[in-house]
Amino acid sequence: MYKKILVPVDGSESSLKTLEHAAEMASLLGSKITLLHVIAPLPSTVHGYIQANDLAINSVQIFAQEVLDKAKESISQKYNLEIETALGDGDPAYEICEKAKNDQFDLIVIGNRGLSQIASFIMGSVSRRVSRHATCPVLIYR
Amino acid sequence: MYKKILVPVDGSESSLKTLEHAAEMASLLGSKITLLHVIAPLPSTVHGYIQANDLAINSVQIFAQEVLDKAKESISQKYNLEIETALGDGDPAYEICEKAKNDQFDLIVIGNRGLSQIASFIMGSVSRRVSRHATCPVLIYR
Repeated sequence: MYKKILVPVDGSESSLKTLEHAAEMASLLGSKITLLHVIAPLPSTVHGYIQANDLAINSVQIFAQEVLDKAKESISQKYNLEIETALGDGDPAYEICEKAKNDQFDLIVIGNRGLSQIASFIMGSVSRRVSRHATCPVLIYR
Repeated sequence: MYKKILVPVDGSESSLKTLEHAAEMASLLGSKITLLHVIAPLPSTVHGYIQANDLAINSVQIFAQEVLDKAKESISQKYNLEIETALGDGDPAYEICEKAKNDQFDLIVIGNRGLSQIASFIMGSVSRRVSRHATCPVLIYR
């Protein structure tokens, strides 16, 4: 019933648990999974610090790709699934909803807990906004 | 993966579509479905009107049971499922979350659109509150 499932991942343990749940569902329903990591805009002070210290701005991209690769690894052994990864940047909730709409996903599976209290607060906010604004069904995992 | 799925229904076309979605999932995953209708407290003026006019207060219960029976009928022919119905009263979002927790449901499937704009607003509010406060995964269907 779900051909394409979108699973946002942020590198937290919690998002890996959500992904495990999505993978179990996908393997039972024969769905394809796309992992999406959205790089939120850096605060201008952090951006300034990076530039001032000549740090490679693309290290953020490299880290983000690692988040995706690790997430993919965490399920690819256990489940026989077609898994894609996608990298986005911008406001996470907005980008998740846009991706789901533009690429015609049938379901978004998203967690609402992060590692720290702050992460939990942020993730909760992202999942609430996604569940409110997405144009497809949203499964909130906890 | 989901043994018990809770599906709140309110008698709207929209909640029947959500139920159809839940039934399809349940039949693929071998889940049992429980339909829940929660009777929200009547505004005191309505309550007064009913008493003043000697209307049967239990007509609300009868109507509520009809909502559940019609919902059950809408899927029982098409899907070979174990279906239970349950009637509650109180704040819908709170009662849905309590039922899911106390009876150890694995998933709540809930819509976020009602028939009218007002119903849509109310259902949206219920589904948002359920997705925020439930202790199990919540699938928001649209």
